[in-house]
Amino acid sequence: MALTFEHLREGMELEPLVKPPVDRVQLVKYAGASGDFNPLHTVDDFARQAGLDGVIAHGMLSMGFLGQYVRHLVDAGADIKRMQVRFSRMVKPGDVLTCKGKVIAVRQNDRTAELEIAAVNQRGEVVTAGKAEVRFF
Amino acid sequence: MALTFEHLREGMELEPLVKPPVDRVQLVKYAGASGDFNPLHTVDDFARQAGLDGVIAHGMLSMGFLGQYVRHLVDAGADIKRMQVRFSRMVKPGDVLTCKGKVIAVRQNDRTAELEIAAVNQRGEVVTAGKAEVRFF
Repeated sequence: MALTFEHLREGMELEPLVKPPVDRVQLVKYAGASGDFNPLHTVDDFARQAGLDGVIAHGMLSMGFLGQYVRHLVDAGADIKRMQVRFSRMVKPGDVLTCKGKVIAVRQNDRTAELEIAAVNQRGEVVTAGKAEVRFF
Repeated sequence: MALTFEHLREGMELEPLVKPPVDRVQLVKYAGASGDFNPLHTVDDFARQAGLDGVIAHGMLSMGFLGQYVRHLVDAGADIKRMQVRFSRMVKPGDVLTCKGKVIAVRQNDRTAELEIAAVNQRGEVVTAGKAEVRFF
């Protein structure tokens, strides 16, 4: 169920969203959707020549997952005003990312909440983390 | 040509990237790639019932364009460490977004630059803007 402003409390942990495993076709789709055709994300040989053991996901894919997560949390009840993230680890095909969140501030005067958000892989490593500001209607 | 750390100067305007017009199929592809199937982005009737005049792009799509732009600017010469954006306007099919950037700080000690980035539509309106931090090798 979508969050409502009245139920938010500072420190509240939000229901995680587990994404299906990242797969190569998804990276091809992401390339086609974004127009970002850097072969590092789709061609294993190219990625190997760059010193990796194969393709890696677009950093913006995990950021996109976090955007989707925040939208999923608030549904149609709020605008997403800002997002900021730090990219800390590579994401590879087969990785299972879980999006997690926590309420870190609630501002009554403009019905705005600040959320701490992170995408964590199946080994519990944070791959992308940051904050989102959402304003409830 | 990709930026090199040695050529960066504070205040330097960066070469813009003009994206092809946003189209509906791209929104469908983005839905498939991200797993974000909110029909607001793909079904006009649904969007109209929500009070819009038709589908709008995923906010994360314009953020993704900015991520692609920063990657395009630095090519393989730097890591993108952080991004932050503010979403200010809706993006609709047919909109032509231009990604623009400017160097706002250069730190010699860790070869890191802070860029101001924005996606601007064909009417010159900023739709998404923020900052990126890139660290050169």
